[in-house]
Order: sequence, then structure tokens, then C-alpha cells
Amino acid sequence: MPTIIECVPNISEGRDRASIDAIAAAVRGVTGIRLLDVSSDVSHNRSVLTFVGDAASMRAAVAALFEAAIPRIDLRRHRGELPRMGAVDVVPFIPIRGASMEDCVALSREAGAAIAERFGVPVYLYEESAASEPRRNLAEIRKGQFEGFAEKMKDPRWKPDFGPGEPHPSAGAVAVGARAFLIAYNINLATKDLAIADRIAKAIRHLSGGFRYVKAMGVELADRGIVQVSINMTNFRKTPLHRVFECVRSEAERHGVAIVGSEIVGLTPADALYAAAEHYLRLEGFSAEQVLETKLLGE
Amino acid sequence: MPTIIECVPNISEGRDRASIDAIAAAVRGVTGIRLLDVSSDVSHNRSVLTFVGDAASMRAAVAALFEAAIPRIDLRRHRGELPRMGAVDVVPFIPIRGASMEDCVALSREAGAAIAERFGVPVYLYEESAASEPRRNLAEIRKGQFEGFAEKMKDPRWKPDFGPGEPHPSAGAVAVGARAFLIAYNINLATKDLAIADRIAKAIRHLSGGFRYVKAMGVELADRGIVQVSINMTNFRKTPLHRVFECVRSEAERHGVAIVGSEIVGLTPADALYAAAEHYLRLEGFSAEQVLETKLLGE
Repeated sequence: MPTIIECVPNISEGRDRASIDAIAAAVRGVTGIRLLDVSSDVSHNRSVLTFVGDAASMRAAVAALFEAAIPRIDLRRHRGELPRMGAVDVVPFIPIRGASMEDCVALSREAGAAIAERFGVPVYLYEESAASEPRRNLAEIRKGQFEGFAEKMKDPRWKPDFGPGEPHPSAGAVAVGARAFLIAYNINLATKDLAIADRIAKAIRHLSGGFRYVKAMGVELADRGIVQVSINMTNFRKTPLHRVFECVRSEAERHGVAIVGSEIVGLTPADALYAAAEHYLRLEGFSAEQVLETKLLGE
Repeated sequence: MPTIIECVPNISEGRDRASIDAIAAAVRGVTGIRLLDVSSDVSHNRSVLTFVGDAASMRAAVAALFEAAIPRIDLRRHRGELPRMGAVDVVPFIPIRGASMEDCVALSREAGAAIAERFGVPVYLYEESAASEPRRNLAEIRKGQFEGFAEKMKDPRWKPDFGPGEPHPSAGAVAVGARAFLIAYNINLATKDLAIADRIAKAIRHLSGGFRYVKAMGVELADRGIVQVSINMTNFRKTPLHRVFECVRSEAERHGVAIVGSEIVGLTPADALYAAAEHYLRLEGFSAEQVLETKLLGE
């Protein structure tokens, strides 16, 4: 069984192509790492790197990321539309295959401790790695942003998990943690009535009594003359796609509305699709090891 | 999109471990080839190798296979329970990803011509590569077996596609061709009545009016006290799993019988499962390129 962990760090540079390329090259150069994507947003002035590897390669890649980013990104001169607190702003580790959430929590602690020691950047463990409830939420950690962080850190409740008691002068602070893969999943309804999409979104989302790992809202697709339940699946292993699909189908039927189709936006782990096939085909004793391509992913 | 072609040659040696290991090692040593499995059957005195790679690696691997097998397997001394005609008996190429059936037909012709020229073994193109209808069927080609092949080849209808007009003295003849991946798929029914499984098998199989790429029969699972429709899916792209599952469900319901579950025996390409997920979730615009693991399979 190959070990695949994904890392999707956000860095606070989305405009200077030379800096972004140099930081990406540093990550790509680490043995055992596959850099899958670099997406930069000019107005947010932020880039998201996507890379995969095993735990050992991840530790090396995160060190390479900071080593390349710190001399190139100075938050004292940074402007952008989204809240941010660090040159490397957030480093999430995501278990994909052959690694558990616990493995990724352990990795986030090791990587966090190493970053703090080597680069003098304060580290906050967040999401599944958080030591306390308020630190699970990235938005809570980021509050105050880079400009307010020296002040925020004077409060003993915001002592970092690793590293100095004040922000790095140019690189600020960073959140490091483990979380599940997020699948952006939309279900399209054969109606123009946005109120129906809204009611169904409310029925399935955690906030209002629905599935624990679902965030959802109703959206109008004006060009197609239909509406959509737009969903973030924050843990497809615990709340799988097919269960949400069937719930939406049942709720929509109650309004006399059919499902036109659904869509996965961007990437999904193969396991999310295997789980749907397994459910509907009622597969007995299925294992991803039976999939030819799994055998090709390495040892 | 990585190119993955699978090759599952049968060799007429299932007892002498040293020979089998040497032949497997020759294939494994070819750059770009991943040897996934070697299964030997002592009573059949036959081994099946499973390896994958792109077209160029496949040509080299098949040459390496013959080079290692010919000095080690002498059919004049071979005994086994199944029909066979060659030291390397059959070489099927199977498109998995990024390669079409046409690509595999072309590969089988190139590899066949090269084998005939280099090793002096007559080559019959079969299945999708066959030049005429009687040669599609491996059993027809094999008829007469090694012992009867010199006689069989005197008939001009059995002139090989490549190579000499008589069998190789020790290595006989070989069938080379392209075919679809075969998925062994069983559907279990909540009844002890074998007649129901038989009737459903008859309903879905090609032979008696069912799906073109389905072979099926009823089987008793005495230990579980149920019956099974045992299926060979000979082309899951043209006759997908979910269509057969839904047809079996409908036929079973007509007898008041439910489906307990289904099972995939052995390996399946990921695409067969993606297709089921796509069908039931009504996915719009889905592509295997959206699956994270696909991106890890190489260029």
C-alpha cells in the first residue's frame, strides 16, 4: 500500500512570478515529492501549492518551502484582499491513501516543531491537530492578521504551540495542521426555484441539523435556468457523496423536483468514487487494492 | 495522461520454480515495465504473468519474455491439463488508460512480426487483432494443440499471420492479440433456488439475447445458502457493471428476490468503478483526470 499524503500550503505571494516559480521549484526539487499544481490569485496576492508524497518527503518539502519563501515574501510590504498572517500562511496535511488522520496529525506536529526551531516562526496547530477547540478554526487563528499579530500574541491564550512568543518580523506566523480532503460537490435541480435549493441545503448541512461534514447553500445557475445545491464535503469518508446525493434526491422529490445531475469541481481522491460504486453495486469485500491502478502507485 | 497497457501472457511452465523465476526476472528487468503478478498452476503446468507499461516498453518486454522462455520450455516434454500450443502460449495486450483498442491492435501486430522474425515462432493474431472471424477465438486457434500443430499448419487456412509455415520445434506457436480487460463479477441473490440464478444468467448473457459483452451462469453458494449469477464482463466500457447490476436487480425482483450483494473477483481497472459512480451520482462532465491518483500515475 503506497503512502500518499497531500499538502496544500497557501503562501502570501500571488503576483511576483519569479518568486512563485522559485518557491515552487524548491518544493519540486525534494526527492519523493510530486508537485501537482500551483494556482496564483493576483487580487488575493496569494498562491496555493498542491503536492503529494510520504511523511518523510513532506517534512523535507515543508522545510524547503519555508527556506525559499522567507527571503522572498515580506509581509510588511504585502497587500491583498484576503486575511493572512504569514509569508507561508497555512500548511494543511491531508491523508489520501495508506496514511491515517492520526499520521497526519503526528506529521503536522513534527513539521511545526521543526519550522519553529529552524526559522523562528511561531506555529499554531489547527483543525485536527489543534490542542484546544478555539484553535481548530483557521479564521479564529488568523484574526488580527499580520498587522495585529504582535498585539494578539501578548494575550497568553494565543501563545503558539511551537516557537517564539512574537511574530517573525517579515514572515509573521503560520498555521499547521491535519484535515480531511475537501471535495467541492454540487447537485443540480430541475427547477428555477432558488427557495427549494436553499431548503435542501439547509436540510443537509451540519449547521442546521444535517450531515456532520457538509456545508451547503443554494445557488442560482442563471445560464442554465436551474438551481444548485452547492456543497463542501469536508470529510468524504465519514459523510460520503452517495449518502448526500440520496438525501438531496429524497428532499427534492418531496417538492416534486428531480436531480438533473451532480458535479465534482476540481480534484477528488479515488476512494470517494470507489465508495459510491461500492454502495450502489452493493460490493462485498471490496478493497482499493483490487484496483489495477492502485498497484501502480508504488510500494 | 499516462499510457498504461496491460499484458497477461500465459507460459507453458507451472512447475519448475527456477525457470518461472528466470522468465519473470527477464520481464521485470525491462525499463518502464511493472510486473504486478506471477500466478503458477501446477496441475495446469502453466503460469500467467501480469505486467503493465507503455507500448515501447511492451515491445521490449515481449522480446525479453520469449528470449527467456524459449531455452527453458520444451513442449515436446510438456504435460498439463489444459490445451496449449506454445512455450509462450498466448500474449494478450489490454488497454487500461491513455491507450485505445486500436493502439493495442497495432502493438500486437508489431510485437507479433518481431517475435516471428527474431525467434522463428509462427504467430496467430487473435481477438480484436484477428484478420478473419475464425481467428478471433483462441480455442479455435489452439485446437490440435502442440502435438497436432505440424499437421494443422499444412492446411492453408491455418497459415500463420507472421513467421514460418511450421511450428517451432520446441516452442510451438503463439497467439498474440488485443482484447478488453475481463472483469470477473458475481451478483449474489437472496434465494436458494438455482433455477432463478440460471434464468437471470440466461437473460443477461450475449449467447441467449442479453448484453453483448456478458458471459454468465448460475452457481450455488452452498456454504452461504444462496445462489449467484457468476459473470464474465468481457468489455466493461461497452457493457458497464452498473447496467448489468440494474438488469439483474429488475429480473430478480420479478421473482420476488433481492440482491444480497455483488463482488469483483481479482482486479478491476479504476474506470469500471468510476463509471458506476458517474452513473448513480449522475455526474456531469466527469473525467478521470479529476482523480488525484490519476495525476500520480506519471506523464
